[in-house]
Amino acid sequence: MKKNIIVGQSGGPTAVINSSLWGIITEGKRHPEQIGCVYGMHNGIEGLLADSYTDLSGTLSDEDLALLKATPAAYLGSCRYKLPENLSSEVYRTLFDKLNRLNIGYFLYIGGNDSMDTVSKLARYAENTESPIRFIGIPKTIDNDLIETDHTPGYGSAAKYVATTVREITLDACVYQQRSVTIVEIMGRHAGWLTAASALARKEPGDNPLLIYLPEAPFDLEKFSSDLEQAFRKNSNVVVCVSEGIADSSGHFICEYSSDAQIDTFGHKMLTGCGKILENYVRNRFGVKVRSVELNVSQRCSGLTVSATDMEEAALAGQFGVISALEQKTRSMVAFKREQDSDSYHIAPCLIDVSAVCNKEKAFPGEWISEKGSDISSEFLHYAVPLIRGEVPRIMEDGIPKYLYRK
Amino acid sequence: MKKNIIVGQSGGPTAVINSSLWGIITEGKRHPEQIGCVYGMHNGIEGLLADSYTDLSGTLSDEDLALLKATPAAYLGSCRYKLPENLSSEVYRTLFDKLNRLNIGYFLYIGGNDSMDTVSKLARYAENTESPIRFIGIPKTIDNDLIETDHTPGYGSAAKYVATTVREITLDACVYQQRSVTIVEIMGRHAGWLTAASALARKEPGDNPLLIYLPEAPFDLEKFSSDLEQAFRKNSNVVVCVSEGIADSSGHFICEYSSDAQIDTFGHKMLTGCGKILENYVRNRFGVKVRSVELNVSQRCSGLTVSATDMEEAALAGQFGVISALEQKTRSMVAFKREQDSDSYHIAPCLIDVSAVCNKEKAFPGEWISEKGSDISSEFLHYAVPLIRGEVPRIMEDGIPKYLYRK
Repeated sequence: MKKNIIVGQSGGPTAVINSSLWGIITEGKRHPEQIGCVYGMHNGIEGLLADSYTDLSGTLSDEDLALLKATPAAYLGSCRYKLPENLSSEVYRTLFDKLNRLNIGYFLYIGGNDSMDTVSKLARYAENTESPIRFIGIPKTIDNDLIETDHTPGYGSAAKYVATTVREITLDACVYQQRSVTIVEIMGRHAGWLTAASALARKEPGDNPLLIYLPEAPFDLEKFSSDLEQAFRKNSNVVVCVSEGIADSSGHFICEYSSDAQIDTFGHKMLTGCGKILENYVRNRFGVKVRSVELNVSQRCSGLTVSATDMEEAALAGQFGVISALEQKTRSMVAFKREQDSDSYHIAPCLIDVSAVCNKEKAFPGEWISEKGSDISSEFLHYAVPLIRGEVPRIMEDGIPKYLYRK
Repeated sequence: MKKNIIVGQSGGPTAVINSSLWGIITEGKRHPEQIGCVYGMHNGIEGLLADSYTDLSGTLSDEDLALLKATPAAYLGSCRYKLPENLSSEVYRTLFDKLNRLNIGYFLYIGGNDSMDTVSKLARYAENTESPIRFIGIPKTIDNDLIETDHTPGYGSAAKYVATTVREITLDACVYQQRSVTIVEIMGRHAGWLTAASALARKEPGDNPLLIYLPEAPFDLEKFSSDLEQAFRKNSNVVVCVSEGIADSSGHFICEYSSDAQIDTFGHKMLTGCGKILENYVRNRFGVKVRSVELNVSQRCSGLTVSATDMEEAALAGQFGVISALEQKTRSMVAFKREQDSDSYHIAPCLIDVSAVCNKEKAFPGEWISEKGSDISSEFLHYAVPLIRGEVPRIMEDGIPKYLYRK
């Protein structure tokens, strides 16, 4: 007897989270004998609770689907809803009643850490209540901080954006002869994977960015000053890349160094990034021209720097999720295994226990950070270059990208 | 008798300032009977004074030239050197001695307002001293604030970057159901041309960005609050685009509203943009989720959002500059005339008196700003869409753009 698929998106957007959605819809349509339709819940689990969803397989045209695959941010909308730890809580019965009324056989959830927690809880509730519904998590995060997978869809495109933009900022920062410092603040509160990608901006070793600081290594202002003095001997224009989450040895975030002091004219506390703090520090310590650039949300929603590798892997993760669900797999997350034995890059999808993944974070490997704590090793470049390779055809209208909007 | 060309770049970078340089080098090579070689001075006029220059026509391969055309920021380096008003000052004799020693017949300078001032002074000195050297200015500025030209090379690509990025930020800002405000700060201290380009991000009229504020209209915090309240009735996620240079009716910059109050932990004054000020204001006034995004230098150095129209026009400006110099034109700037009588977009290059251009600014037309001062009229869209049209082939290496670096 035919069953339906329901899919949701949760957590922060990425450039390819909709490519995974595309993979789920198109794979779902390939099995008409087993699958009725593919429902999309709006704003993740919140939409299911509010009976807000659409039949994606029935309403999206082929042209819509092509646009969807290339549209950044979460087409279905997102949420940060956390299910209660206590599985006997009322909300679970409510959710399963709704799933049964929609004749759902397969529940797929595209998201990061917290979303995998949702998948784990629903799957365990299903086991306890002997529900036949299958629950599969499709990973996505620009932070690349999920364990037990070589990398996560979304990271490659964000890394490509960071590497491209830092290369261009470096060109821009070097046009004048006068000494200057340019500080680039990159996303990553706890994990330095994205900031490390700034090392890919170098044409040759020793190029800018001359200094790179990750949250995994303690940050010290005095050491930063001496690092800068050394860097000035190599280049009068120094580009510094820092994770938003860099902290000192006592665990105190650099971005909080001024929060007690900064008040606007209305007497309100101002929030600043660590880039601004360091910009100000360098200006007063060195008296040179200094600028800080916060790459901000474009890291996760830029559609013109998407990595073709990343987009295809995101689509594959969605397709593999559907196939696994049809094979009655559950309480699993799709993961990627890299073939180590081959020189050429090759990735194979696999399933891992979602309960083992959720609420854990994969930090950037300490051995890939230079001894001085201000650079990245070549092992990382070897790991990351394949993830940012490949261009996606551009779909434009009136000179800017054409994207799919939810009605 | 053969003469040489010397070319320099000055002022802030753009995505296509090197396309004009490409146009000058390639056009220069097309006239071997009149032109010996094309010298490039490093860091503008400063390089000429320091005898720092290269023979571009002799050293750049065809592949180099193809990369140069697509490389953002100033390949030759830039400067902000202002020549003295007094034409009898020693520096002029020094400069002309150097030009004569290099057998220069044609001096081309790619830049904005201040650079045109340099061209004007050198040309007038040449007239006074009966020097045969010809001086032509090639316009470039992302600000689009040069008078007597339909637009300036560099603006189209910056506008395309702003429109593309604001469209993507809007997708990102709308994924959650909770009310939110996203403030995008766009370059433009005095002229609102670039901020106005954010209106191109809309798919349909009435879409985000719901509020757009330019420096040409006085900004009032109380009116901003009521504009926001109205915007919330249309959309729970409001995107606001502001020029960095918005000021109140007394001419006081909004970005200075907190500069006296903001002090870092070391007791130093912090510099903030108006986006941060407004972010803080909205957070405290409305208590909603709010974020500010400063688009920053990528507006002028992003190589993946270059407008093909802009790139070709920038190259044309360089080529037309060489041809005009060979026709013994001088003290002129290349400008663009738009054919008004045709529906299709067509631009013709022409020459204008450079002395009439320099040190003047073209403000955004008041009649293109809505009565409420928070939106842009459709006349602007009609003006701007052709300038951002067309894609440029991407030249990539290891997943990021390949650019030409000066040895």
